[in-house]
Amino acid sequence: MQKNADLMDKIVSLCKRRGFIYPSSEIYGGIAGFWDYGPYGVELRHNIKQHFWNKFIIGREEIYPISTSIISNPQVLVASGHVGNFGNELFAVSVGTGEEAATSHLRPETAQGMFVNFKNIVDSFHPKLPFGLGQIGKAFRNEISPRDFIFRQREFEQMEIEYFVDPRDPERINEIFDGFYDAQQEFLKEIGLSSSKIHKIDVPESDRAHYSKRSIDTEFDFPFGQKELFGLAYRTDYDLKAHMDKSGVDLSYFDEETKERFVPHCIEPTMGVDRLVMAVLSDAYTEDELGGEKRSYLKLAPLVAPVRAAVFPLLKNKPELVAKAREVYSMLKKDIPNIEFDDNGNIGKRYRRQDEIGTPHCITIDFNTLEDDMVTLRDRDTGEQERVKIADLKEKLS
Amino acid sequence: MQKNADLMDKIVSLCKRRGFIYPSSEIYGGIAGFWDYGPYGVELRHNIKQHFWNKFIIGREEIYPISTSIISNPQVLVASGHVGNFGNELFAVSVGTGEEAATSHLRPETAQGMFVNFKNIVDSFHPKLPFGLGQIGKAFRNEISPRDFIFRQREFEQMEIEYFVDPRDPERINEIFDGFYDAQQEFLKEIGLSSSKIHKIDVPESDRAHYSKRSIDTEFDFPFGQKELFGLAYRTDYDLKAHMDKSGVDLSYFDEETKERFVPHCIEPTMGVDRLVMAVLSDAYTEDELGGEKRSYLKLAPLVAPVRAAVFPLLKNKPELVAKAREVYSMLKKDIPNIEFDDNGNIGKRYRRQDEIGTPHCITIDFNTLEDDMVTLRDRDTGEQERVKIADLKEKLS
Repeated sequence: MQKNADLMDKIVSLCKRRGFIYPSSEIYGGIAGFWDYGPYGVELRHNIKQHFWNKFIIGREEIYPISTSIISNPQVLVASGHVGNFGNELFAVSVGTGEEAATSHLRPETAQGMFVNFKNIVDSFHPKLPFGLGQIGKAFRNEISPRDFIFRQREFEQMEIEYFVDPRDPERINEIFDGFYDAQQEFLKEIGLSSSKIHKIDVPESDRAHYSKRSIDTEFDFPFGQKELFGLAYRTDYDLKAHMDKSGVDLSYFDEETKERFVPHCIEPTMGVDRLVMAVLSDAYTEDELGGEKRSYLKLAPLVAPVRAAVFPLLKNKPELVAKAREVYSMLKKDIPNIEFDDNGNIGKRYRRQDEIGTPHCITIDFNTLEDDMVTLRDRDTGEQERVKIADLKEKLS
Repeated sequence: MQKNADLMDKIVSLCKRRGFIYPSSEIYGGIAGFWDYGPYGVELRHNIKQHFWNKFIIGREEIYPISTSIISNPQVLVASGHVGNFGNELFAVSVGTGEEAATSHLRPETAQGMFVNFKNIVDSFHPKLPFGLGQIGKAFRNEISPRDFIFRQREFEQMEIEYFVDPRDPERINEIFDGFYDAQQEFLKEIGLSSSKIHKIDVPESDRAHYSKRSIDTEFDFPFGQKELFGLAYRTDYDLKAHMDKSGVDLSYFDEETKERFVPHCIEPTMGVDRLVMAVLSDAYTEDELGGEKRSYLKLAPLVAPVRAAVFPLLKNKPELVAKAREVYSMLKKDIPNIEFDDNGNIGKRYRRQDEIGTPHCITIDFNTLEDDMVTLRDRDTGEQERVKIADLKEKLS
């Protein structure tokens, strides 16, 4: 365990030193359970969210994006059972002033905002089953003991989908459930996580909520142990019925073809953004020797790396090299926004810095470049260098 | 005023009917000052935020993206003066449990999270002045009377930059200030707002905070009157000094060239996302006659339109037309993610729906398309139609 505690210290230290993640309000001694994302952390997190958005929301015609408020009418979390069951854990806020003031709570999950908008989506879009709502947003839990860096925070971000299905077809429900499980696993592969660290946990009936018919947790080998990364649950019609009962508003669905009316069932794939960031960082952190020197670096997949490639002039005091490097930088940045220009310190120092933030490739412009329009492309993991035509760079990087 | 109240009713109604914006937790009677963004609202808001991000943050090497927590150490908002001056207006939350519990507040602006990270950015990146921090994120104010749809909300989203400058060069500070003013105005033009509705307000000294040396508000002709859209302020060293005093941490900057140490001054361009959405929607709402029929539509700039183009098969019961339309849709979607496929109802109904959500172009696949690989491209504003080669569509739309 000491080895793993050391590993966590190294990751936390790298994150602060290189501008990924800082303790929130650190100059005041911080605040337990809250973290700020610095420039590279913002980009890494953005890349993970963007890939989720493309794969699960924008890329699927039947899933509608939505963004609901963090504070809602107090009844929402009463109906969902959160206030009754987890009132210790919720952040209470007083909304309104004077006699109109009422106690509400910061949402502990983004899910309920989607259930209460079920009817709005049906009325605006008339979707056929199956269809889903998806959102990415912040949620808050007043955890008793926030710990393990960004793994257990009091303020965190979720990516959730509520996918509504026809309860009359249990076989199709199982197919859809399995499809989401496969897509979740594909997603982990695409953001670069090692498959050997990923574990499938079929949650047994005794551990499931009473309304849940099936649930699969995905766990991951973090440095602090095998812990839940995210979940997938078949929640039946529990949430829609709870809101229907409490609000008195009809949340049933009318099937135009069979002329039947029923309350849809729901499958919920839910992921925590920060836990994914934590998994990616801990999986990517690598120590090795390169050219006889010890180094530590982040072996990030190009899809999530905060900087896709860095462009250097070999020497910073040679205007013709700097100008050419600027030209290459501008050309690449048009199509690949996360390109960095760096002319600080010597080339070895620049390589070490880019390795540490996980930049897959470095591109160096030297005197030969001015003659032959070729650059040196260096691979982060092997340190190997090859000469590449400037005109071929875009293709090499995408 | 009645005319304008009618206009607001029409906009609010369109937003709900078509899936832009819904009252938060509406099935429970809503909650004053909170709104949910539906699918098209999410896309419209995303486009505005993305353009800000590209233009002001990722597009500028000297501005560092950051994302700080909504809840921070209680001292942050004490030092900034918010707790002392606006304690009525802040949402209080109790953080931690038992004896460790302490009262903090939801941030009323994203700015303070950047001031308290000033030292972190300097330590991680060693930037030269001038440089800035930028973030997009939610903020909360317990407004006494939330009103005017999404204009005055209790939960809203901001896009802010804190730009640090050398206090020894007042002339350069004025140039930078003017540069941000120009960039803000350019931004409004790019997202499609009518310049005739935009007003520049030089805030006189008597209306400025005591520490503010210069401030320009940009106001806009909303249906409910000329109101503040966003601001630009020269805040001197007030915030960094306040946090330095309260925290005891040195937030000065060391100039390597002149070997001088000083506290930088700050210029703050700040924009509310929801107010921009409100301005865009109210400016775009148009009623006219087309082909002898009255219609209402959103005259949105292509840059912000939630759907860039919609692809239709002329008839939905002709498999060969549907297949060809699907092919065109898939081809376009690869490069332009916000493309919609629609085969509901007749073609006239589909045009009306796309006009109402502000889709700049509709593309119809008919029987001739199967022969000549040309489609009908319809312009939203004029209703004019032209025949265009499928191969030329991408260029036409970008």
